[in-house]
Amino acid sequence: MHEDCAVIVADIEKDLRYIDGIIKQKGREILSDYTITPPQFIALQWLFEEGDMTIGDLSGKMFLACSTTTDLIDRMEKGKLVERVKDSKDRRIVRIHLLEEGERIINEVINKRQLYVMQVLKNFTPEEVKSLKDNLAKMHHEMKED
Amino acid sequence: MHEDCAVIVADIEKDLRYIDGIIKQKGREILSDYTITPPQFIALQWLFEEGDMTIGDLSGKMFLACSTTTDLIDRMEKGKLVERVKDSKDRRIVRIHLLEEGERIINEVINKRQLYVMQVLKNFTPEEVKSLKDNLAKMHHEMKED
Repeated sequence: MHEDCAVIVADIEKDLRYIDGIIKQKGREILSDYTITPPQFIALQWLFEEGDMTIGDLSGKMFLACSTTTDLIDRMEKGKLVERVKDSKDRRIVRIHLLEEGERIINEVINKRQLYVMQVLKNFTPEEVKSLKDNLAKMHHEMKED
Repeated sequence: MHEDCAVIVADIEKDLRYIDGIIKQKGREILSDYTITPPQFIALQWLFEEGDMTIGDLSGKMFLACSTTTDLIDRMEKGKLVERVKDSKDRRIVRIHLLEEGERIINEVINKRQLYVMQVLKNFTPEEVKSLKDNLAKMHHEMKED
């Protein structure tokens, strides 16, 4: 690859990393209004994005030991954010299911992120916003093709 | 804001969130070659991006109790990833400093992220890459203006 191209890619990777970090920070500011911890929030995000999961699957996604995830889910179940549901065909399989309150929190965080992105794009022309949207959509699509 | 615009912003926020998640995953795959844990990696990233920090500052960034961060740093100091350095003017102030091995790991992860981004952009025209780079740079710039 041409040297200039490597520099451009390095810029894109770095900007993406910083942009996501800042948006994440803005989204999480809302968490101080709730009594949930950052690991609980990460678990909520996975359940929101992937649907019901076993403790084993969730542990894998979160890079945690199963015993740590079990403790985390116990506390979240007490807080009525999630519930344990037995598989209807094989009752030995238990999955974690996101409850209404957990989904409400995740949706509030996503709304806050969207409001922040909207504010950041206020000095963009409609053409720039359109081109950004198209390029990000293409990038996401190419990643799924992998 | 116009309804269409809200939909476009929602798309941009969502694509950014997924893109960063996938790039992060690719970057972290390299971690399995090392003996560092995800929280250690997050601490390394903060020290790499912000320079030397006190335990208090790092705890704030990582949303951890100071005692948890102290344990984390103790283990990283044993692994020669970081060291504690006293402030030259006020010896009561102790900061965590990234050592060569810690920096090497972070750099390897960033290189892996860049290679992945390069691969994802292989079906983009040079104009699309340029426009993506410019729009992300502008977005990052607007965030810093806040």
